[in-house]
Amino acid sequence: MATQANSIPHPTLIQVDPFIPADQQKGIHNRWHPDIPPFATVKPGEVFKIECVDWTGAQIGNNDNSDDIKNVDLTKVHNLSGPIAVEGAEPGDCLVVDILDVAPFEKMPWGYTGIFELNNGGGLFAREFDSKAAKAIWDFHGIYASSRHIPGVRFAGVSHPGLIGTAPSAELLATWNKREGDLIAQHPNAVPAVAFAPNAVGAYVGQDLDDKVRQKIAEEGARTIPGREHGGNCDIKNLSRGSRCYFPVFIKGANLSVGDLHFSQGDVSLSFCGAIEMAGVITFSTSIIKGGVEKFALKQPIFLPSPIDPLYSSKVIFEGISVDYHGDGKQYNMDATMAYKQAALNAIAYLMKIGYTREQAYLLLSAAPIESHVGALVDSPNACVTLAIPTGIFSHDILPKPEGFTKQDFGQCAIRSDGIV
Amino acid sequence: MATQANSIPHPTLIQVDPFIPADQQKGIHNRWHPDIPPFATVKPGEVFKIECVDWTGAQIGNNDNSDDIKNVDLTKVHNLSGPIAVEGAEPGDCLVVDILDVAPFEKMPWGYTGIFELNNGGGLFAREFDSKAAKAIWDFHGIYASSRHIPGVRFAGVSHPGLIGTAPSAELLATWNKREGDLIAQHPNAVPAVAFAPNAVGAYVGQDLDDKVRQKIAEEGARTIPGREHGGNCDIKNLSRGSRCYFPVFIKGANLSVGDLHFSQGDVSLSFCGAIEMAGVITFSTSIIKGGVEKFALKQPIFLPSPIDPLYSSKVIFEGISVDYHGDGKQYNMDATMAYKQAALNAIAYLMKIGYTREQAYLLLSAAPIESHVGALVDSPNACVTLAIPTGIFSHDILPKPEGFTKQDFGQCAIRSDGIV
Amino acid sequence: MATQANSIPHPTLIQVDPFIPADQQKGIHNRWHPDIPPFATVKPGEVFKIECVDWTGAQIGNNDNSDDIKNVDLTKVHNLSGPIAVEGAEPGDCLVVDILDVAPFEKMPWGYTGIFELNNGGGLFAREFDSKAAKAIWDFHGIYASSRHIPGVRFAGVSHPGLIGTAPSAELLATWNKREGDLIAQHPNAVPAVAFAPNAVGAYVGQDLDDKVRQKIAEEGARTIPGREHGGNCDIKNLSRGSRCYFPVFIKGANLSVGDLHFSQGDVSLSFCGAIEMAGVITFSTSIIKGGVEKFALKQPIFLPSPIDPLYSSKVIFEGISVDYHGDGKQYNMDATMAYKQAALNAIAYLMKIGYTREQAYLLLSAAPIESHVGALVDSPNACVTLAIPTGIFSHDILPKPEGFTKQDFGQCAIRSDGIV
Amino acid sequence: MATQANSIPHPTLIQVDPFIPADQQKGIHNRWHPDIPPFATVKPGEVFKIECVDWTGAQIGNNDNSDDIKNVDLTKVHNLSGPIAVEGAEPGDCLVVDILDVAPFEKMPWGYTGIFELNNGGGLFAREFDSKAAKAIWDFHGIYASSRHIPGVRFAGVSHPGLIGTAPSAELLATWNKREGDLIAQHPNAVPAVAFAPNAVGAYVGQDLDDKVRQKIAEEGARTIPGREHGGNCDIKNLSRGSRCYFPVFIKGANLSVGDLHFSQGDVSLSFCGAIEMAGVITFSTSIIKGGVEKFALKQPIFLPSPIDPLYSSKVIFEGISVDYHGDGKQYNMDATMAYKQAALNAIAYLMKIGYTREQAYLLLSAAPIESHVGALVDSPNACVTLAIPTGIFSHDILPKPEGFTKQDFGQCAIRSDGIV
Repeated sequence: MATQANSIPHPTLIQVDPFIPADQQKGIHNRWHPDIPPFATVKPGEVFKIECVDWTGAQIGNNDNSDDIKNVDLTKVHNLSGPIAVEGAEPGDCLVVDILDVAPFEKMPWGYTGIFELNNGGGLFAREFDSKAAKAIWDFHGIYASSRHIPGVRFAGVSHPGLIGTAPSAELLATWNKREGDLIAQHPNAVPAVAFAPNAVGAYVGQDLDDKVRQKIAEEGARTIPGREHGGNCDIKNLSRGSRCYFPVFIKGANLSVGDLHFSQGDVSLSFCGAIEMAGVITFSTSIIKGGVEKFALKQPIFLPSPIDPLYSSKVIFEGISVDYHGDGKQYNMDATMAYKQAALNAIAYLMKIGYTREQAYLLLSAAPIESHVGALVDSPNACVTLAIPTGIFSHDILPKPEGFTKQDFGQCAIRSDGIV
Repeated sequence: MATQANSIPHPTLIQVDPFIPADQQKGIHNRWHPDIPPFATVKPGEVFKIECVDWTGAQIGNNDNSDDIKNVDLTKVHNLSGPIAVEGAEPGDCLVVDILDVAPFEKMPWGYTGIFELNNGGGLFAREFDSKAAKAIWDFHGIYASSRHIPGVRFAGVSHPGLIGTAPSAELLATWNKREGDLIAQHPNAVPAVAFAPNAVGAYVGQDLDDKVRQKIAEEGARTIPGREHGGNCDIKNLSRGSRCYFPVFIKGANLSVGDLHFSQGDVSLSFCGAIEMAGVITFSTSIIKGGVEKFALKQPIFLPSPIDPLYSSKVIFEGISVDYHGDGKQYNMDATMAYKQAALNAIAYLMKIGYTREQAYLLLSAAPIESHVGALVDSPNACVTLAIPTGIFSHDILPKPEGFTKQDFGQCAIRSDGIV
Repeated sequence: MATQANSIPHPTLIQVDPFIPADQQKGIHNRWHPDIPPFATVKPGEVFKIECVDWTGAQIGNNDNSDDIKNVDLTKVHNLSGPIAVEGAEPGDCLVVDILDVAPFEKMPWGYTGIFELNNGGGLFAREFDSKAAKAIWDFHGIYASSRHIPGVRFAGVSHPGLIGTAPSAELLATWNKREGDLIAQHPNAVPAVAFAPNAVGAYVGQDLDDKVRQKIAEEGARTIPGREHGGNCDIKNLSRGSRCYFPVFIKGANLSVGDLHFSQGDVSLSFCGAIEMAGVITFSTSIIKGGVEKFALKQPIFLPSPIDPLYSSKVIFEGISVDYHGDGKQYNMDATMAYKQAALNAIAYLMKIGYTREQAYLLLSAAPIESHVGALVDSPNACVTLAIPTGIFSHDILPKPEGFTKQDFGQCAIRSDGIV
Repeated sequence: MATQANSIPHPTLIQVDPFIPADQQKGIHNRWHPDIPPFATVKPGEVFKIECVDWTGAQIGNNDNSDDIKNVDLTKVHNLSGPIAVEGAEPGDCLVVDILDVAPFEKMPWGYTGIFELNNGGGLFAREFDSKAAKAIWDFHGIYASSRHIPGVRFAGVSHPGLIGTAPSAELLATWNKREGDLIAQHPNAVPAVAFAPNAVGAYVGQDLDDKVRQKIAEEGARTIPGREHGGNCDIKNLSRGSRCYFPVFIKGANLSVGDLHFSQGDVSLSFCGAIEMAGVITFSTSIIKGGVEKFALKQPIFLPSPIDPLYSSKVIFEGISVDYHGDGKQYNMDATMAYKQAALNAIAYLMKIGYTREQAYLLLSAAPIESHVGALVDSPNACVTLAIPTGIFSHDILPKPEGFTKQDFGQCAIRSDGIV
């Protein structure tokens, strides 16, 4: 007979409350540093769960204006749960991490996508659009998300951790701080900033630590914004539940941390906070491949995709090349970032023909399972990038038809309470 | 009864011989210019075929050294078949082009992928590798390609035209020449060149034309290397047989031209001539959407993908970020091109662990149905790009296993007769 | 800020305990009858959850022998949660049901697949194999299942309700009992039985009812074994989380019931209890299409598949035709059931070459995401059916290679404590 | 340089004319018999082409009535090209056949789907519909087919040989004739016939043979209608170009024959001649696995699917169970054939709501890439089968919407010149 005795749930190694500020909770940190001690330790093969607050640590609410986005405190991001040490992992090994599931908290079946202010977060089109804060709240209905702020759309989530990585060694950390510092030095006044130096303000380690250690972590710890050798904030949508990831190990125990869970995201999280951000639970198991860094020439993580990533075969695909079509027409030199931006602006213009506002379209391209492929990178001077919108996520037909579109009224997303867009 | 009388084959509007130099044949041109008259005219709805020489115009042979790549005359590329005028198409319309099939000539069931010399063609890693000419010959077996120069691999082609577009108007052409000229002026001595200015040397229009017109075309005609507003050399692998493409129309008749057929290509044609280049036949039908440019905000082509693009669900995926890991470790600022390059170099390093040479791996990533997605573009300072290798194209297992790889001997691809690699 | 106040979880309308016998719990019934009152009522558009015990009501344990399968009490199956009435639904309408999620209880992360005794349950090969009870316990690791009783296999679940349907009207129920009674009358002594007549023994309605009503339900209520006009036990694996189903409505309120949740199943649940049976939670929302039965000619449910059904593109496919190859060689007349059986027996023979026992192979084909397509039904006298095994669910290579297989030792599944197989 | 000298086309081993009756051509036969000598011999590894007439041998024309279907001479079918002997193949080996391509003749870019008369061919619903001859002509546009007789539909072909197999040994042939003869003896007057005994009328071997041998073949040779141990007329749509098939070998050389090419077909060729029948060219290569029958327990062919089978992810799926819903309501006993028929009739009824005639719907389900899965086979008394129609093959929306369908007028398919349907 089925009994409680013969049914053993997977343990939750870090428990958090999504409604309490992150810096009041244990097991959360927001800098990368080798001296952060493991919060828990696992054996290879164990299945375990980790709870995560959303990346801002409960700063954003389920409501209909974007003032919380406007005023978000970015020194406190990203909140990571961890570290988790894996017994037997040593520098030079490969830590195999099975991302077995990623799900929102049952008690918090919603998430958000935000457009950040030019001066507080930015985003891909922060300058082009002189971005003002805006957001969409997404309701989770099982595998699907939909938003009262972007009507006519529903899609299955490619749920994944935006941010996951092993801890850097002291040497690696020094390398990061050096190379990023050099870049900042070259662009000292850039808005948005080109990179983020270590900053003790807002730094947090959710453990009882000696003050000197804590201070060292706060002052040296790498910010969590970019992806790096260890993984980090790669925002790869297909690192999703069901995928298997191979991380290089830099310190004893590997010290895996994770956060910034996304219910869904397109191939690029355009609007900075472009994914559907959520708090929730991630389920893992791990194993170790001794000497894996050498075996697989592992300078960065590699991964195997999930068999259950959403499949939408019908798509409208936009091209972009490295000429600033939507701006001054300037020719760039084989610049894939510019090409991506043009493809995205072409898609936004198309969605506006259907009736979405620019802000809705910007949020939608960030949040939905958009695919963006690199096309050409050798046909000088133009890089070419494509961006594909699945037609099946809309309740109306978005295919280009001879008669064109009858513009519909989809309202507007959540904007600032002062009404400025 | 089935009879010849009730069976009407689709007409071939341009016929070429893949074994004769392109500049000795009718219906071929190699510059973009509004004054190139249509070689043939079709009505909307007609199904028709166009034959194409390979992009070099028969310069490359089915043999086992790469001297022909080393010495290729690039002033003569790309050879385009056309233009084809479509009755009723006018500036501002959208020309809908169904790419119904793309196939090699029966009499020429092979193609090639080339690594070009740093000083004659270049390629994504021309400088990093100080590239010397190398190539792989691919044999076509129905839907599959395999190569004696890269053993252990067989894959289904994503056959497509590397180069397809409508003719520019005089204004658009002037815009191109201006903006690309400006870029060249900024990097006058770049190797490889950052862009290619109009060049009468090698210019060719396979029609009987007045000398003055011909001269004008040769002197002003845009080079075919990059993709632009009209389509052009976008090298988008999924613009494949079965796809439907929507082009802006710039002159009366639209004047569609096509060439540079690829039996297959990855998401980036890394090695410049990175696709499997072939001569062959493309089948089209067209229709017109009046005012389509306005209806769909069409600054560049958009397209719908084919239902028969090859599906390989199992993949090994490599990450790359905008730090020059395989070089000097320099930090770049949100540079997707650099991120792509790192992902590709990570993949090459992995394939070399299995036993392929660097040249074989470089050619393979270019030619096989590799997927490359843009990941992060807002996580300063690191762009993140992924590159996925399907495991099902190998006859051996390339998944990362605990025991690592036993390096196999796959020989080498075709190299220069002087043995320099 | 994210708060409990602005986070409203989806309500659970029926709560059950998977460790308590079903007939001691509220909201569970195991017969189809129009007089079973709704246990709860919803409005169209509401998202809600329903908890379900496993189909046997906790009779099977997480252990290593199959005595519980041998002795299972089948008069008590299937335990259904419900009925749920939908406001506004009337006979002739179509009830649209979104199956938003299907998941095991967190406290019970395991399920089972059973081979039933010839005389107690049977199964597709009960007679051919003279079946003795056997089983496999599956552990759930996020989206994956694996079993200590069938080593070397791991796969993503196509989680779905084996049994879901609207309540029959009195007329429809009478039709069922008449036509099935006629069949039983024709085969009175068949083993296993050809159909199951109403049987008051074991009948259960988990509500406080008037005795007369309860008695009527017990005596007339249709058994839950087969699928019928209203849905029922169709065991369609792709009616999975993410699918949308359109049911005919036969009585006011529609009265939807659901149970027999499966973590996974192949296209046929061969071994009777062939899916991975589990207790768990299903998430729904509903809407009503007035007059939908007439609009869509709805004699039975239709559905739209989920975008996240597992995708394994590489497969080994077995053919079967309606000749009893594994038995006496008899020729059947266009019999797709026989053709399916031959394909399955061919697959079992193949898996035994690799090293699995007949029982392991039988269980695996039932539980894993096997695809079975009907091929030919008009090529007299042979129906043709195919059965496809995905290669990606195995940790070893099952492709047919020139060297054949080196038979591995995978042990045996759980068998009877008396050791009889 | 590319030259004719370094370009070697794949040889065509059997050449036929699709406009000449099959029994006037060499290399064609229409019975299975071990004494038919190989028409050509290949070495393992060679790539070669085989041309095939359509299955009737040019009896059907590209026109707008179905009189040719009505009067078709079925003693002459199926016309097979071959046999091809493979050097080194011996009984007990496994012949690996790569189906590298399947394409129509360029000079004959059309095919047909036919509904056959009850008394001359039949079909799945021949009795239910009292079938009269009808047909649809399909035009091939590259990878797509569309029909003037079924407007509003276009789809990519899953092109495949309906009929492919190795030659039987004398013993195997005797087994076939015995078991099928027994079945015929049990149903001597069935209309349509339950099976087809050897029949010298219409038998043909397109080689110069001794009269005695020819007579023996004609009198004993197995008819080509059903699939059997050697492959044969399995009508498996996914045995498509790009697939790899493993056949048992029964006689020295294996003697592979092929014919009945289909441009496309659903999972069941419902209307007997339900695929899109075409004449065309198939490209093969072969290899041999010694002792493969024993190695893989090979009672029938197994195969690996193609990576380019058309992918249409959005579908409407119909259920069918083994109750005769569209007839007298009779309950059948676990009969998958009946369940399939109900699912198909449900789909036909649905398509008729949209505006197609019953004949058009019947033809469409046969010809388009319909998927039919076996669902339940153990839930007594009802087998359950599903049938999925891809929505992407229609130019209009066929999803079930709240407003139902506005019935469109799609005309009618080609019918008999006497107007009888």
